Amino acid sequence: MPNEAHMKAAMQSYLDALNAADVEGIISLFAEEGTIEDPVGTGVHAAREGLTRLVGGLPAGATFTLDTPIRASHASGAAMAFTVQLTRDGIQTQIRSLDVMRFDEAGLIVEMKAYYGPSDITTT
Amino acid sequence: MPNEAHMKAAMQSYLDALNAADVEGIISLFAEEGTIEDPVGTGVHAAREGLTRLVGGLPAGATFTLDTPIRASHASGAAMAFTVQLTRDGIQTQIRSLDVMRFDEAGLIVEMKAYYGPSDITTT
Repeated sequence: MPNEAHMKAAMQSYLDALNAADVEGIISLFAEEGTIEDPVGTGVHAAREGLTRLVGGLPAGATFTLDTPIRASHASGAAMAFTVQLTRDGIQTQIRSLDVMRFDEAGLIVEMKAYYGPSDITTT
Repeated sequence: MPNEAHMKAAMQSYLDALNAADVEGIISLFAEEGTIEDPVGTGVHAAREGLTRLVGGLPAGATFTLDTPIRASHASGAAMAFTVQLTRDGIQTQIRSLDVMRFDEAGLIVEMKAYYGPSDITTT
């Protein structure tokens, strides 16, 4: 089972790679058979395909910032709350998300679920 | 499907009832067949039994405070990061937890999973 420090470091690396728009860096954190559901309720996708589309859809300069330290667990799951800031067509958007990850024995992410709904998105 | 506002209000009520050590108030938010795993990795329990033990084990004056606004989703799940402060035998303990809830059609909680591990607990 991956330890707490490993899971937290992997999730921080996920945010760091998102901030760098480093899609290969993000995918390298996931197991080959990994899946993502981002956000929950919109369908489960293969990690490589889903993450490529997700990162490809981000405008330049999008930022991902932790709202509170990453949490681990007594098992192979961990979770974190963070805020995405992005600007598209001059409109600033803030998305408050919360990702729950599950890891395999090798310490790779096998499942990511992002919790946010329309009420977690604000524009200014 | 419960709407976002309902899920967020129920989760705020859960924290409010924990702050009041109101075990019946907490249990009333859960479906009869609801389960809790608090924290993840320590076993799933029937909500009534598990919550009664959880609240019964809290020292007087324990507080539960949101770290960042509650998140909803596009489905029947929602999640929140919060911090528990408690003092036992003169030792102040802080637990950084993150709860993921799943709701039924009636808007009652059918599953609660709390993410925290030993690395999320600090004492002073």
